[in-house]
Amino acid sequence: MNGKRATAFVPGHVTAFFSAHPAEDPAAAGSRGAGLTLSDGVDVTVTLVDDADAADDSPVALALNGEPATIGAVGDVLAALDVRARVTLATDLPVGAGFGVSGAAALGTAFAANAAADRGRSENELVRIAHEAEVERGTGLGDVVAQARGGIPIRLEPGAPGHGVLDGVPAHARVEYVTFGELSTEDVLAGDTAALTQAGERALSRLRADPRLPTLMDASREFAERADLLVPEVAEAIEAVATAGDSEDPDGFGGSAAMAMLGRTVFALGTGLSDAGYDPAVCHTHPAGARLVGEAQ
Amino acid sequence: MNGKRATAFVPGHVTAFFSAHPAEDPAAAGSRGAGLTLSDGVDVTVTLVDDADAADDSPVALALNGEPATIGAVGDVLAALDVRARVTLATDLPVGAGFGVSGAAALGTAFAANAAADRGRSENELVRIAHEAEVERGTGLGDVVAQARGGIPIRLEPGAPGHGVLDGVPAHARVEYVTFGELSTEDVLAGDTAALTQAGERALSRLRADPRLPTLMDASREFAERADLLVPEVAEAIEAVATAGDSEDPDGFGGSAAMAMLGRTVFALGTGLSDAGYDPAVCHTHPAGARLVGEAQ
Repeated sequence: MNGKRATAFVPGHVTAFFSAHPAEDPAAAGSRGAGLTLSDGVDVTVTLVDDADAADDSPVALALNGEPATIGAVGDVLAALDVRARVTLATDLPVGAGFGVSGAAALGTAFAANAAADRGRSENELVRIAHEAEVERGTGLGDVVAQARGGIPIRLEPGAPGHGVLDGVPAHARVEYVTFGELSTEDVLAGDTAALTQAGERALSRLRADPRLPTLMDASREFAERADLLVPEVAEAIEAVATAGDSEDPDGFGGSAAMAMLGRTVFALGTGLSDAGYDPAVCHTHPAGARLVGEAQ
Repeated sequence: MNGKRATAFVPGHVTAFFSAHPAEDPAAAGSRGAGLTLSDGVDVTVTLVDDADAADDSPVALALNGEPATIGAVGDVLAALDVRARVTLATDLPVGAGFGVSGAAALGTAFAANAAADRGRSENELVRIAHEAEVERGTGLGDVVAQARGGIPIRLEPGAPGHGVLDGVPAHARVEYVTFGELSTEDVLAGDTAALTQAGERALSRLRADPRLPTLMDASREFAERADLLVPEVAEAIEAVATAGDSEDPDGFGGSAAMAMLGRTVFALGTGLSDAGYDPAVCHTHPAGARLVGEAQ
């Protein structure tokens, strides 16, 4: 099987708000909340290696945009599928900034390794394996199930398939984003999450009562304040977008920006950040979840 | 609101095998089974009309590829959302031939009407409304939930969101198809479905044990024979594809064709029908479910 490879694409995911729901069983643990999956995502290529090739090495050799990298969940996914492989990640998304790159890496590795090594797992099984790896590493709670679904996912109940329940906001939008630096998901999730969870549950109730994009953005801003997660640069950008949006509103989304959980990142619908004078990256909500895009011998 | 419109795209869906599961509650009724969603699908445009415009008319004016048409589920979906509208369907798919055109029409109408009339329903609610309409009209049991998901859906449990459970085969494929004419879903579903359901449950068990595309195709062929649904032209085409596939197998799918449930339609993976000398329509499995593609005043 040496050299056989497969590639999967996984959309990025910005979480608008969430509540944390730990559990003994990592498949049952996770988060409730909502967010946007993005057409900017991660291409994950898994290339099988012989045991002999890898004997004096770690079981996984990982490269991110050409540089050596370490993402614990990727190795855990390969181990769960009993696959030895090189994994290469290619993405335009900022890392550690709230775009679900680690979730995408884990989920894409599951899809691509299953295809390259012909493991015969179903999609739900692959999502579960990637979700468990993220939860056990403490690097994410809800990105994987959102990224497996696509669209604008609402996480009604936490956990992997068989536990979690998803819905979605039936909409699509142009999305702009600007990142001011990293924020550690592990640190926030390891801290006291009581206030955060209360604010997240409140935001989810609002969105369930009115599953529209403007409500999602408004609930996200309220969540960031109540959970005390707003960082100054992001707060300033949200304010600037709101001010600019009062004068310009070409598509009805003017003035609507929020903070990506968890990153020093602001995202806006339509042309919100451009209108406010920022120089944002531009993408769209993504209609599909993770998928295989190619296989080769 | 007169003149406001929205368009949704819904992938086609060929069912490979199924079992019927009636229930008092149409949201709980449905089918188990599996199939392929297709990049060939239906564009559904909903244009709101004033009550006055429609006063001397039926509540729904429906056109399919420019011709007047009647699809009961479409009117039921509009009624459930309290929307008066013209609905236009544009599709390359054959109608009444097992591609889920009625399910696509119902689901696309739900998404587009919700957007045009700003009804604020969630995706699960829209899928439930379309599924209930299809079930109550007797025109389908599982297309809507499959078409809302995309990919290669496995229907583990029947029914709309909140009842049904889905999984998927993590694969993609080129798909060829040839249609020899119509077959009435209503007639088959109204008849004795005991043998069909037994054959469908057996096929599902096989696919769950090995969720790969070749197994899906093989289980589909076995189902068609056991349920006594094979029509002569389709049986002949399946045989011709198998014979041609023995000599040509460029991508590993050679020789794999099956019957679309329920239609006088044969579908094949890769170049199966071309290799056998047919002149098929060509598309691919579709990575995404139903989605809005545009809105306008």
